[in-house]
Amino acid sequence: MNQTIDTILNHRSIRKFKPEPLKQEHLALILDAARSSSTSSYLMAYTMIGVTDPEKKSALASISNQSYIKDNGHFVLFCGDYHRHMLKADEKEKETLAYNVQSTEYFMIATVDATIAAQNMTLAAESLGIGACYIGSIKRDLDLVNDLFQLPEHVVPLFGLALGYPDEQQEIKPKLPKEAVYFENTYKDDEAHMAALDQFDQTIETYYRTRSTNQREDSWTKQMIKTLHNRRNDRLTPFVKEKKFNNR
Amino acid sequence: MNQTIDTILNHRSIRKFKPEPLKQEHLALILDAARSSSTSSYLMAYTMIGVTDPEKKSALASISNQSYIKDNGHFVLFCGDYHRHMLKADEKEKETLAYNVQSTEYFMIATVDATIAAQNMTLAAESLGIGACYIGSIKRDLDLVNDLFQLPEHVVPLFGLALGYPDEQQEIKPKLPKEAVYFENTYKDDEAHMAALDQFDQTIETYYRTRSTNQREDSWTKQMIKTLHNRRNDRLTPFVKEKKFNNR
Repeated sequence: MNQTIDTILNHRSIRKFKPEPLKQEHLALILDAARSSSTSSYLMAYTMIGVTDPEKKSALASISNQSYIKDNGHFVLFCGDYHRHMLKADEKEKETLAYNVQSTEYFMIATVDATIAAQNMTLAAESLGIGACYIGSIKRDLDLVNDLFQLPEHVVPLFGLALGYPDEQQEIKPKLPKEAVYFENTYKDDEAHMAALDQFDQTIETYYRTRSTNQREDSWTKQMIKTLHNRRNDRLTPFVKEKKFNNR
Repeated sequence: MNQTIDTILNHRSIRKFKPEPLKQEHLALILDAARSSSTSSYLMAYTMIGVTDPEKKSALASISNQSYIKDNGHFVLFCGDYHRHMLKADEKEKETLAYNVQSTEYFMIATVDATIAAQNMTLAAESLGIGACYIGSIKRDLDLVNDLFQLPEHVVPLFGLALGYPDEQQEIKPKLPKEAVYFENTYKDDEAHMAALDQFDQTIETYYRTRSTNQREDSWTKQMIKTLHNRRNDRLTPFVKEKKFNNR
């Protein structure tokens, strides 16, 4: 074991932060960590927007209906980005590039690149004692996010990251066991997989029944059926296409 | 600075590995690291397939045309996965869920979840002295990958990770400067952004001209224009849709 693995295994989302901004040296380190990420074909197809303007933070908090998007040490919006790849192309090249990057493949690549950067930032932050929480719910009003940050074509917001010095203690949330997420040589939809899910359901029932706050009766599979039943974001698909991603 | 940040900043892709499998205790640790990942709405919408079968590794190496996919200490295929979320749903629920997870939003979520897990695995591995390289090129023959690993509906291969004890030294590849990938409060398509790209182009010209192997004349923006001009994977979009992702 070592500090890196300790940091990874001790991850828990933090949603309550002390009312102080990240120290400048901490911000510099976590930005360097994000920039050091692996990238597909050297594309680095992502952009980060640090949000310090209180009005913009309030607007994001309203979209997400989560106060910790406003009350934190720093907030970073992660976007997929092919805009800068075209800045120095001539008009004819631009036309070809603008067409090519609209494939599902390039949408995947931008999402992967942005996520690797975000996870590097998260772990670097956590290693410095900073808490972090991924924020998917900024996608509830993509048009407003787009306007707030004046995102050009070929730039699409993916998720945010709320950061800050923790002002709460959180338990580590149990994760699916190895038998449910890791197979050798072939996808195995067998009894061992089902038994692993059964056992995890029991773990989660106990976890929800006994955790220190927000106790409830639920299992993982029940929760998933509800989540996937209810969640909808009808604006996301057309929005992504309007931003010139995922069109072909 | 600390070991976590050192590990992140010292990343370089490793493509030549010693001919020995990962130690079992190392494999166990990096799998735990992957499983500890943040996830959207507790979905954990990913699956990892460890590939040890020499025939399957050879097949993947042929698809990617890269020998290090065969010659390494371990290979892990990362997939987006909503299959297990439906295993315990009744028929009516299954129908609704199967429809819902085909949105672009859920495709994004699965891609993000799988990538966070992969990056946790990568950093845990690197912290143990294991080298790693993301492999996007397994997508060159998605149908074969699908058959090799018997992936059910709602499971889509995203990328692989080649792992092993390094048998080469690699330089750290320069990354875009902060001024080109990080903006405050608004996307800034201004002179500072362009100047950052110009400066990075000069850095990269020097890097390609002076690095220890594969020297060439190129800049980042030139390379990107070529890359985005040429790359195509016409099978990816329909394949993803056939696997019941990204259909609406």
